[in-house]
Amino acid sequence: MILVDPYPRTLDQIFSAGARARLEALAPVAWHEGPSVGPELVEPLLPELVAVVGQTALPAERLERAPRLRAVLNVEGNFLPNVDYADCFARGIAVLGIGPVFGQPVAELALGLALAGARDILRGDAEIRAGTEVLFDEGGNGGSFLLAGKTVGLVGCGSLGRALLPLLHPFGCELLAHDPWLPGESIRALGATPVGLVELFSRSRVVFVLSPPTTENTGAIGRTCFEAMAPGSVLVLVSRAAVVDWPALLDAAASGRIRAAIDVFPEEPIPAGERARTTPGTILSAHRAGNVPEVWREVGEMVATDLEAVLAGREPTRMQAADPATVARLRSRPIG
Amino acid sequence: MILVDPYPRTLDQIFSAGARARLEALAPVAWHEGPSVGPELVEPLLPELVAVVGQTALPAERLERAPRLRAVLNVEGNFLPNVDYADCFARGIAVLGIGPVFGQPVAELALGLALAGARDILRGDAEIRAGTEVLFDEGGNGGSFLLAGKTVGLVGCGSLGRALLPLLHPFGCELLAHDPWLPGESIRALGATPVGLVELFSRSRVVFVLSPPTTENTGAIGRTCFEAMAPGSVLVLVSRAAVVDWPALLDAAASGRIRAAIDVFPEEPIPAGERARTTPGTILSAHRAGNVPEVWREVGEMVATDLEAVLAGREPTRMQAADPATVARLRSRPIG
Amino acid sequence: MILVDPYPRTLDQIFSAGARARLEALAPVAWHEGPSVGPELVEPLLPELVAVVGQTALPAERLERAPRLRAVLNVEGNFLPNVDYADCFARGIAVLGIGPVFGQPVAELALGLALAGARDILRGDAEIRAGTEVLFDEGGNGGSFLLAGKTVGLVGCGSLGRALLPLLHPFGCELLAHDPWLPGESIRALGATPVGLVELFSRSRVVFVLSPPTTENTGAIGRTCFEAMAPGSVLVLVSRAAVVDWPALLDAAASGRIRAAIDVFPEEPIPAGERARTTPGTILSAHRAGNVPEVWREVGEMVATDLEAVLAGREPTRMQAADPATVARLRSRPIG
Amino acid sequence: MILVDPYPRTLDQIFSAGARARLEALAPVAWHEGPSVGPELVEPLLPELVAVVGQTALPAERLERAPRLRAVLNVEGNFLPNVDYADCFARGIAVLGIGPVFGQPVAELALGLALAGARDILRGDAEIRAGTEVLFDEGGNGGSFLLAGKTVGLVGCGSLGRALLPLLHPFGCELLAHDPWLPGESIRALGATPVGLVELFSRSRVVFVLSPPTTENTGAIGRTCFEAMAPGSVLVLVSRAAVVDWPALLDAAASGRIRAAIDVFPEEPIPAGERARTTPGTILSAHRAGNVPEVWREVGEMVATDLEAVLAGREPTRMQAADPATVARLRSRPIG
Repeated sequence: MILVDPYPRTLDQIFSAGARARLEALAPVAWHEGPSVGPELVEPLLPELVAVVGQTALPAERLERAPRLRAVLNVEGNFLPNVDYADCFARGIAVLGIGPVFGQPVAELALGLALAGARDILRGDAEIRAGTEVLFDEGGNGGSFLLAGKTVGLVGCGSLGRALLPLLHPFGCELLAHDPWLPGESIRALGATPVGLVELFSRSRVVFVLSPPTTENTGAIGRTCFEAMAPGSVLVLVSRAAVVDWPALLDAAASGRIRAAIDVFPEEPIPAGERARTTPGTILSAHRAGNVPEVWREVGEMVATDLEAVLAGREPTRMQAADPATVARLRSRPIG
Repeated sequence: MILVDPYPRTLDQIFSAGARARLEALAPVAWHEGPSVGPELVEPLLPELVAVVGQTALPAERLERAPRLRAVLNVEGNFLPNVDYADCFARGIAVLGIGPVFGQPVAELALGLALAGARDILRGDAEIRAGTEVLFDEGGNGGSFLLAGKTVGLVGCGSLGRALLPLLHPFGCELLAHDPWLPGESIRALGATPVGLVELFSRSRVVFVLSPPTTENTGAIGRTCFEAMAPGSVLVLVSRAAVVDWPALLDAAASGRIRAAIDVFPEEPIPAGERARTTPGTILSAHRAGNVPEVWREVGEMVATDLEAVLAGREPTRMQAADPATVARLRSRPIG
Repeated sequence: MILVDPYPRTLDQIFSAGARARLEALAPVAWHEGPSVGPELVEPLLPELVAVVGQTALPAERLERAPRLRAVLNVEGNFLPNVDYADCFARGIAVLGIGPVFGQPVAELALGLALAGARDILRGDAEIRAGTEVLFDEGGNGGSFLLAGKTVGLVGCGSLGRALLPLLHPFGCELLAHDPWLPGESIRALGATPVGLVELFSRSRVVFVLSPPTTENTGAIGRTCFEAMAPGSVLVLVSRAAVVDWPALLDAAASGRIRAAIDVFPEEPIPAGERARTTPGTILSAHRAGNVPEVWREVGEMVATDLEAVLAGREPTRMQAADPATVARLRSRPIG
Repeated sequence: MILVDPYPRTLDQIFSAGARARLEALAPVAWHEGPSVGPELVEPLLPELVAVVGQTALPAERLERAPRLRAVLNVEGNFLPNVDYADCFARGIAVLGIGPVFGQPVAELALGLALAGARDILRGDAEIRAGTEVLFDEGGNGGSFLLAGKTVGLVGCGSLGRALLPLLHPFGCELLAHDPWLPGESIRALGATPVGLVELFSRSRVVFVLSPPTTENTGAIGRTCFEAMAPGSVLVLVSRAAVVDWPALLDAAASGRIRAAIDVFPEEPIPAGERARTTPGTILSAHRAGNVPEVWREVGEMVATDLEAVLAGREPTRMQAADPATVARLRSRPIG
């Protein structure tokens, strides 16, 4: 039996007819849609359960009663603490996540936002609509700059950074990176120079914030960082709002010193009164970096491919195995 | 004697103190600023003139009286018909243009506009400011798509296309190109597949219009092309407006079928009543693709480097030698 | 306590003074050199053992007596069956291998051998030394070809293939790949086209054999494959000899139809009477692809970095976590 | 009338049936094969001559009598001094060369030779055939090194260097370049660091000599350069022997300090007694870098394509326009 419980995604967002058929060819499937799968549904499935697709609660007492369980395929993007991961590893259950699937969509939007910031695309459009555009010879476009040859910094060099780096390579930028979890030699192996956080902000004309939030880095990117940025620099925030000092970021944008392109917010859905809605110097995007329709359908194909592999005793090739050492430490829900 | 007459650029836009000093080390320099250098200024310089930096009128009768002229360094971006190019070639005078310098800035903006179109960045920003953003799960971001793996078409494979292609490579797109001046084997050598104009529009999710206007292609990209595009496709126009059927382009954008990112206009400065100002489905930019401050300063360095080379009997390495066969056929002024 | 038992490597091959000091900063280290660490040495260490660097036998009964064991760091390149991997996974012990470290050296030699084959470098050198070189205009170099634009096939798309692909990209080849363990969509995601084994051999001008041997693919690349190759094609074998039908490969090279560049042999050290030693049409290399001095010193740095990470509760970033599903199925010792 | 006189190439080396037909569709063609086209053949053609394909002597007095001549298409690789180039430029005759066609084949062989040197591929093969190969654990392969991450130097950054650089990029090397004709900013624009000649040799683990010979650089790369190289470094010489101090190069290789891969010789065909034939520490290749069969057939297609373009008043896109400033200064015949 396979339990599919993809909340907060819907079945239709993820599964094409083809992907559904691939799962049903492996085992009977219990398709669940909606916010919470209750015990009355989960408990009877446990004895025959071979895989869970989703973030269904799986404490040790449930795992004990699921002797045939072979795989937990998270389709949320983050590993929530409602699963006893240690017990899964001890039992040899594959714990797979979809992290890598967001690399490309987030990297593409991040680069798009960086170029929009560097070239002031939104203001350029607004001025023509308002009839206030200024000729280049009279000072128009004065704040624009090229990426080519500039210094660019990445805060975080995980799957998002690894997806962004190839898109940046043809620009010939000097690449700096800061990632407290990666040794310097690993950063150098990616073609970037490891530097401290404040040095990264002070030297980079564009800074990409790509680090996942942890219990340790909440608000770690603060006023000191933003004040170190050269005037006219661009910051692109696409991981989670919790890693920055939010008021300090909005202050820096509002002051006109930097431009901030922001895809994630401290509270989501964004409250009506969120200050960012009216902060100048920003480009705003409502958590759309990874949320592209074709990406979620790709998740369905990945789930089918890797569940086929695991049940056949082969190595999964599309999803990412959770790391025992860190799966429990990541959390990436916006802080309410 | 070197005549510097960079109109419509100003001296300050192009020349740093360092670049000025480099020119002055080569020969006495007549620095001219403003719309038109009159005969009273040009004629006395002819006997000693070794180089002209700018688009000063040089008909055959003037060239005859400039026996020591070695180089004409165009800094306007287009070769205007006020120079007798055939006579320059016959006399062994180097005719150099700055075409290549615009490759990178235009390519960067073109990619930025393509990503802004593919991800609907401007609408996403506007909706948050208006408080009308829609959650992904409720249909928000439904029209967004990735560049990765899509088919992308380039109309024109000259210096703009050659600068854009490397930026597209890491996206792994299928690349189509149409350039009536380039044989298919040259297009294939660039890594793209040569196709007809309508096939390019019908197969590409993103179309970049990069072809310079000529006496032959005015309005060549018309209604048939736009109607061939798949719904939700993106067109990026960054060369000159004259190559497209302007009303047909705006109709296509207004209909909601495609999104059109437009950097060039039939008349510039853009008239107050230009219809594009209010056309939905567009992203507008006031001829800012190449007009980035650092680009024009780079022109000054190129001019100094290559004039040093020519006067020393070496090959110029930064600017582009004009091609005798085609220099007279290009024109790229917007049609008034 | 850390047990370092790197046989068949020596301590000096792997560990610089710096790497030794890094290990000793983590825990007391038992450094062992030589073919086999006896029970008299291992058993007393078990109660305090936190890590094993090497391929020391670790059956379940030993693991039971090593309650503090956190990591097994294989430095041999293959996971041998003398460890109870299932028990390690159940106990939450990190099982790490050095597979990725060989990607670059093997890819560089594989490309070097392919170019040596395509350009007949060895014959070219031998002819000059023998005074028998032939002018190009009289037929010399007639069998040489360019990689650029050719079709190239990879048998195996694991870590070796992933290291080789970037080196091939600038040649603009059409890339085919065959890997029975990888679904077609994963191969496409690497930029190659998945094809069947015989189709790969029949269409490729250069074939790289990069697949690790398994219990299932012994000799799988046989006469049918070699006979499908176009005359003048090049085969590069750098994984293990066991995956090919050895006599059939040598027959194909000896016939003059193909050139075969071979780094691995059925028996190693290579017996004096090995037929390959005198087979024409071959380029021979004595298992030198991965065995480059600087690579083994890099292993020492990787071990230190990742052991530091695991003992600090962080994710290892340099070595590769063994996959529970397949670790027991790989074997790559040449068949004696 | 088109005169085709491709000596030292033969008609068959260059022209497929298709390429011949393309030329004949443009004008009547006089096909000549063999060492020297005499005046009795050339003189009568002059009045109707529209193009010369080859290195036929064209002094001013002949050009005068060829009023319809539009193009001189050199297919030899070098511009010899038997043409009055200044007169061609003055007359508006296109002077085109095939320089760019050799970029890829030379770059591929140069990389192959570099890898053969870095990995000692030839010695490795010879030892197995002699039965004297040494196990890695007993010191075998001790002199091998990786390109990845090393410093690599290019002497000359013209068309050969520009073809080689993309092949080197995925190795992640630090790239140095020396080219007295290129300003430092142009070298930096290619992604390399400009340095002096001796610094380049002293810092690079692999040095590629790619500079064409001129009247000024004969033997410029001498003993001081070779002595500056670190022991175990590799030199790859693929442009012309005249640019190096030949005895000093062979001394350096013979001493065991460096390995030298050599494709060009002071005298060609190589004399029987040439010392290099017996010099240890070398890899020898008989001017095969550019002389690959498919390359010369490609030349035929380039000639047809660009002659079609020139006669139709379009810009040539495959061959390279000769530079007026330098065409007369290059010479690249081996010094007899």
